[in-house]
Amino acid sequence: MNLDNQQTLYLQIYEKIKQDIIENKYVENQKLPSIRNLAKKLGVNNITIVKAYDTLERDRYIYKKRGSGVYVNNLNIKKNILEEEILMETFKYGKLEVECEINFANSNPNGSYFPITKFKDCINYVIDRDQEKIFAYEDPKGYAGLRDIISKHLEDEKIMTHPEDIQIISGAQQGIDLITKSFIHFGDRVIIENPSYSGAITSFKRGGAKVMDIPLLEDGIDLKILKKILAKEKISYLYLMTNFHNPTGISYSKKKKLKILELAEKYDFYIIEDDSSSDLYYKNKPLSLKSMDTDERVMYIKSYSRIFMPGLRLGFLIAPKDKLKYISFTKYHTDISTPGLIQRAFEHYLNSDLWEIHTKKLRTIYKKKFQVAYDLLRKIDHLRLFAVPQGGLYFWVQLDKVSSEALFLKTLQKKVGILPGSIFKLDEKSDGWVRLCFADVEIEEIKKGLEILKECVEELYNL
Amino acid sequence: MNLDNQQTLYLQIYEKIKQDIIENKYVENQKLPSIRNLAKKLGVNNITIVKAYDTLERDRYIYKKRGSGVYVNNLNIKKNILEEEILMETFKYGKLEVECEINFANSNPNGSYFPITKFKDCINYVIDRDQEKIFAYEDPKGYAGLRDIISKHLEDEKIMTHPEDIQIISGAQQGIDLITKSFIHFGDRVIIENPSYSGAITSFKRGGAKVMDIPLLEDGIDLKILKKILAKEKISYLYLMTNFHNPTGISYSKKKKLKILELAEKYDFYIIEDDSSSDLYYKNKPLSLKSMDTDERVMYIKSYSRIFMPGLRLGFLIAPKDKLKYISFTKYHTDISTPGLIQRAFEHYLNSDLWEIHTKKLRTIYKKKFQVAYDLLRKIDHLRLFAVPQGGLYFWVQLDKVSSEALFLKTLQKKVGILPGSIFKLDEKSDGWVRLCFADVEIEEIKKGLEILKECVEELYNL
Repeated sequence: MNLDNQQTLYLQIYEKIKQDIIENKYVENQKLPSIRNLAKKLGVNNITIVKAYDTLERDRYIYKKRGSGVYVNNLNIKKNILEEEILMETFKYGKLEVECEINFANSNPNGSYFPITKFKDCINYVIDRDQEKIFAYEDPKGYAGLRDIISKHLEDEKIMTHPEDIQIISGAQQGIDLITKSFIHFGDRVIIENPSYSGAITSFKRGGAKVMDIPLLEDGIDLKILKKILAKEKISYLYLMTNFHNPTGISYSKKKKLKILELAEKYDFYIIEDDSSSDLYYKNKPLSLKSMDTDERVMYIKSYSRIFMPGLRLGFLIAPKDKLKYISFTKYHTDISTPGLIQRAFEHYLNSDLWEIHTKKLRTIYKKKFQVAYDLLRKIDHLRLFAVPQGGLYFWVQLDKVSSEALFLKTLQKKVGILPGSIFKLDEKSDGWVRLCFADVEIEEIKKGLEILKECVEELYNL
Repeated sequence: MNLDNQQTLYLQIYEKIKQDIIENKYVENQKLPSIRNLAKKLGVNNITIVKAYDTLERDRYIYKKRGSGVYVNNLNIKKNILEEEILMETFKYGKLEVECEINFANSNPNGSYFPITKFKDCINYVIDRDQEKIFAYEDPKGYAGLRDIISKHLEDEKIMTHPEDIQIISGAQQGIDLITKSFIHFGDRVIIENPSYSGAITSFKRGGAKVMDIPLLEDGIDLKILKKILAKEKISYLYLMTNFHNPTGISYSKKKKLKILELAEKYDFYIIEDDSSSDLYYKNKPLSLKSMDTDERVMYIKSYSRIFMPGLRLGFLIAPKDKLKYISFTKYHTDISTPGLIQRAFEHYLNSDLWEIHTKKLRTIYKKKFQVAYDLLRKIDHLRLFAVPQGGLYFWVQLDKVSSEALFLKTLQKKVGILPGSIFKLDEKSDGWVRLCFADVEIEEIKKGLEILKECVEELYNL
């Protein structure tokens, strides 16, 4: 090491060790020399080494163990998370970039369901109505007219909320990002379902949270395990998709919903309820956790991606009053506001009977698809269905003794796309589960696709 | 303390101390009992206290000093930042919510400059052209057609970049947020200009950065101070507005731009160049730092808010290839993508000659306003102009011996809005500077407003 005076000493030492770590001259968890030894070897003060080590720790190249010494980290944690996940991006983004003719992987609604002409009318109407206001800065909290009509619609769902308690967001992913940035500190415990939505998992992790998962049962997460964790650790947030869960399709029972609210109050944690599919019920509209939330324990996120048009990037968030002001502040420092043009056109759409007509149409379509798919799936040997969904877009199925990756590769050869369950797992481990989504597959394709799936399963079992 | 068995011991101790801190039963920096003493007093193991203290430190209620003990933090840092800044929000949001007739505080362009009819045509054109694609998920990196035309336009500005190296963002604030979340670790050093844009300061701080500032001179930041810092500390990012700086209006000299690039390479830091006003030149178009960036040291952010329509929430970011993939990944986990409708309509606009006509018109308007305002400002005694802007929307002026808050309150009485300089400062301290912006003030109003300003100054000096 050339200890000249161009930079201060500790920075040179920092740079040298950092470089060595980056170039893999150390192995992960290797112990570095003690402060005293290194200082002696380099002929510098102990304090210089302390500063160099502190800086390396700050940048996460090394970590310290109480009373033991200093060790090489598995490089930059943040960078590691990023690189691993970019490798996974084909799956992570919830769609397949590879070519397939029948795509049960894609959860984006088919474009033919979009009410394009009607929405175009709405756009033109509001441009003429609001003129330059539509292209000026919008209130960071969201266009007041849109918050008004949303709060009116929510009454039908037994959610009583004031327009001032609503934050307009650019989709559910932004809602998760805003909550993470507003409230989650480094090291905070966040509990998710197993399986859960990968976009949420990544957001919480990158926000510094320690994420833990709890297995999902047919009526919601396993409360025994939740209680065990709560008795041991301070939990900050619980992230749930309570109705027509992605990827399993299950809904929480009313009893479990109430019990979770009770636990939140008792153990002082908050629930992030991601409720983006509950309009897609086959029979009865389920109630949200938010509608039962008497103690203000629920932050409620609703996206319009699945039930309207995902490219609009639109949704809303309800939070307890004292929390909402922070969220709006964070929204401002994230992207100022959601575009006024989109908010105002959608407000006009919601204020007409178009919304009811549209969601009713979607329900009819999806219910029909569900029925066709369900009848065919039941006839596939070796295939286990996690639960019978009462709404939504998904089947969560498992093959015993065959990995989901094997099934994935097999169906892909025949140009049928499915999504291996590992992408919905915190540990990213495969355990044979697979998500089938019929959002973007028409009835005739469902028939054809599930026939191919059946063939694939048979081939795998005859190997 | 009631040490029952309902929760584990350490959590009860944690809760009790936390509660005491929140209720201000300790003063800031007060030393807490040693582990041994507290364990003895409560009749528990030392390890229980260690766990309680660790949890309190994790949640930032306390901090530890090597070999000294445990101290009470100035409460929750994140929360403190939030509350202080929400108090400041009237100013922070860069506009005044209070009523004023002539508003030099607002930096949003006047709505009458918006090309509403032309843009409405573009919207209708692309909806007919792209149909359902316009409302489906867009590429997280941005619509390819928009990235193409932007990269072509950039050639005229001597920025040679491939469409693949461009990330579409929902305005400059999002660009700053994405860079912060992608690359800035807790404790990283970020240098900003003094004065600088408050939205950036807050983003960096909330991302965990240690933010430092360097005084701005007429040709850019003081390089002597920058070099001193670089010799002492490892710097991660330098955030600059190189052309027609907000709030001072200055531009960096070419010499200084080149020198900063040289330093970035030598000391291994990156520059975030926020270039959202350079189209608003009065005489000559200035070059960006990015156009001189041979070593890939610059992350370049451009917003269309000031030069087109802010409500669209549109801009782009160029970053070195190895960094851009992380940014796109972060963008996906922030809001999936910027709405396709807006990207595609704007692409169509940029692809016509409308863009050139529009920016030329803005330049003519602002140059005229500048000239009128400049001639009047020079005639106000006691008022010092920081520099004579060569473009942009701002004057940065100072009264000697009178605080900016006094001037602010004085002009507000006469329904003229100005912005006290403290909101552009890292330390939020006032030093007599004030920003005057003529984006939303017409020529006749400028004359009237500056006449009132002159009266106010005279009154303040005659007190």
